[in-house]
Amino acid sequence: MVLTIIGLGLMGGSAAIDLRKRGFADKIIGVDKDQINANAAHHIGFVDEITDLESAVKQADMVILAIPVDATVNLLPKVLDLVDKQIVTDMCSTKSTLLERVKYHSKRKQYVAGHPMAGTEFSGPWAAVSGMFDSKATILCDTEDSDIRAVAAVKRMYELLNMRVIYMNSINHDVHAAYISHISHISSFALALTVLEKEKNEKHIFDLASGGFDSTVRLAKSSADMWTPIFNQNKENVTTVLDTYINKLQQFRDYIENDENEKVHKLITESNKIKRVLFK
Amino acid sequence: MVLTIIGLGLMGGSAAIDLRKRGFADKIIGVDKDQINANAAHHIGFVDEITDLESAVKQADMVILAIPVDATVNLLPKVLDLVDKQIVTDMCSTKSTLLERVKYHSKRKQYVAGHPMAGTEFSGPWAAVSGMFDSKATILCDTEDSDIRAVAAVKRMYELLNMRVIYMNSINHDVHAAYISHISHISSFALALTVLEKEKNEKHIFDLASGGFDSTVRLAKSSADMWTPIFNQNKENVTTVLDTYINKLQQFRDYIENDENEKVHKLITESNKIKRVLFK
Repeated sequence: MVLTIIGLGLMGGSAAIDLRKRGFADKIIGVDKDQINANAAHHIGFVDEITDLESAVKQADMVILAIPVDATVNLLPKVLDLVDKQIVTDMCSTKSTLLERVKYHSKRKQYVAGHPMAGTEFSGPWAAVSGMFDSKATILCDTEDSDIRAVAAVKRMYELLNMRVIYMNSINHDVHAAYISHISHISSFALALTVLEKEKNEKHIFDLASGGFDSTVRLAKSSADMWTPIFNQNKENVTTVLDTYINKLQQFRDYIENDENEKVHKLITESNKIKRVLFK
Repeated sequence: MVLTIIGLGLMGGSAAIDLRKRGFADKIIGVDKDQINANAAHHIGFVDEITDLESAVKQADMVILAIPVDATVNLLPKVLDLVDKQIVTDMCSTKSTLLERVKYHSKRKQYVAGHPMAGTEFSGPWAAVSGMFDSKATILCDTEDSDIRAVAAVKRMYELLNMRVIYMNSINHDVHAAYISHISHISSFALALTVLEKEKNEKHIFDLASGGFDSTVRLAKSSADMWTPIFNQNKENVTTVLDTYINKLQQFRDYIENDENEKVHKLITESNKIKRVLFK
């Protein structure tokens, strides 16, 4: 089939590499409003040609939007305006706003809302890697509003990417994503800011940084262009989680300040239950 | 030389394995008030014999305390009471309280305050591994109060563990440790608690957990027995860092709530500067 990928960064590029390698697409057409990205993707070779949006959609059997959520909210209706029989899917980390936006579009059934839970803290076509999606989960949302053949095609694509497919409604998806993904990123961004601020007076503050610090702030390398609109579109859930998180930190702070060691010990022991769900 | 290790967990055990392998110690004597740990250490084989504190100190050329900081504060003066020519060192993550405690001890010069910045989120003699200290930093504090030969011996030990030796006064050490290590742990503990609490109502909240979540909460597997006294002994610094951290989170929260996307974007971009100091 002919696959069009809009957005040739980490997500779109990594998908292109493996979908070609695993025989899903015979031809991959790329669209990117950033000419440098577009040229790089073509030069790296994970797309066969670069063209404009209209031509790319018209030629395709399937279209994947792999751009930030704010851009997707604007572009998805325009892509649906252009489609005839094409299947359209996206890779955004928030789903409710997007689905609201196209709820009454005449081509709504040809669109399948997807969220592959994979990535790295890097971005751009240079960051695209084979195997990035392997063994991770992908969520398809509100599939009852999509054509059954469109869902089957998108499911088959994710299965070729070796992903576990989960079905969920978009409201639940956004709650889960806030707890499992969005808060981890804010936690890392804030931690990085805290230590970077201290560095202004303590030049050697990072001399002692070791593995624990590294893993906790790793996500703070993530792209502002990608994450700003995610937090904005999921703001009710994100602020709710942040309130709980800040409250837990405040508990630690107050117990520590008041030498309430038994309570600190109890909080840590309770948090240790996370062992049950961690992968390693 | 004969090396006595008090505390046969992750730190003491991992040190024992490599200090024997690399020829630092001919004989290693173990002390642990927990009989199960002591038996395990002997059975695993990283100590040659288990004996009581007094006998173990008397036989040793060097004594390493590798127990939690609250226990060290109590035990270090007793160990120093027992020594004749032995060199004594410790591996605690906070230093000021400990050094205050032995400041006027007649054997103070035979003690060298150390903090090897290495570890995993596991604990106990079963967690001990070869190579755990390799390529990490170790801090020796207030070495001007120690005998120059004692410092040289402890330095040589850490060099055999392939560690980079840094000298720092204990006050600065505790500030740095709060920013680079202690806050990362509280951040992870609180994040784990936040999501575990949500799980009470949302049974499948962890279904979507992926690599980003995993790395951010990894430290929440850490031992309450070890970390509670660290936070307590370093409480001024830890509460100061927590205040800054909570403040940064509150900024994110308020900007997100008020759709101030430019300010969110700016915070994230600022936090991205952490790339400069991360190891990979």
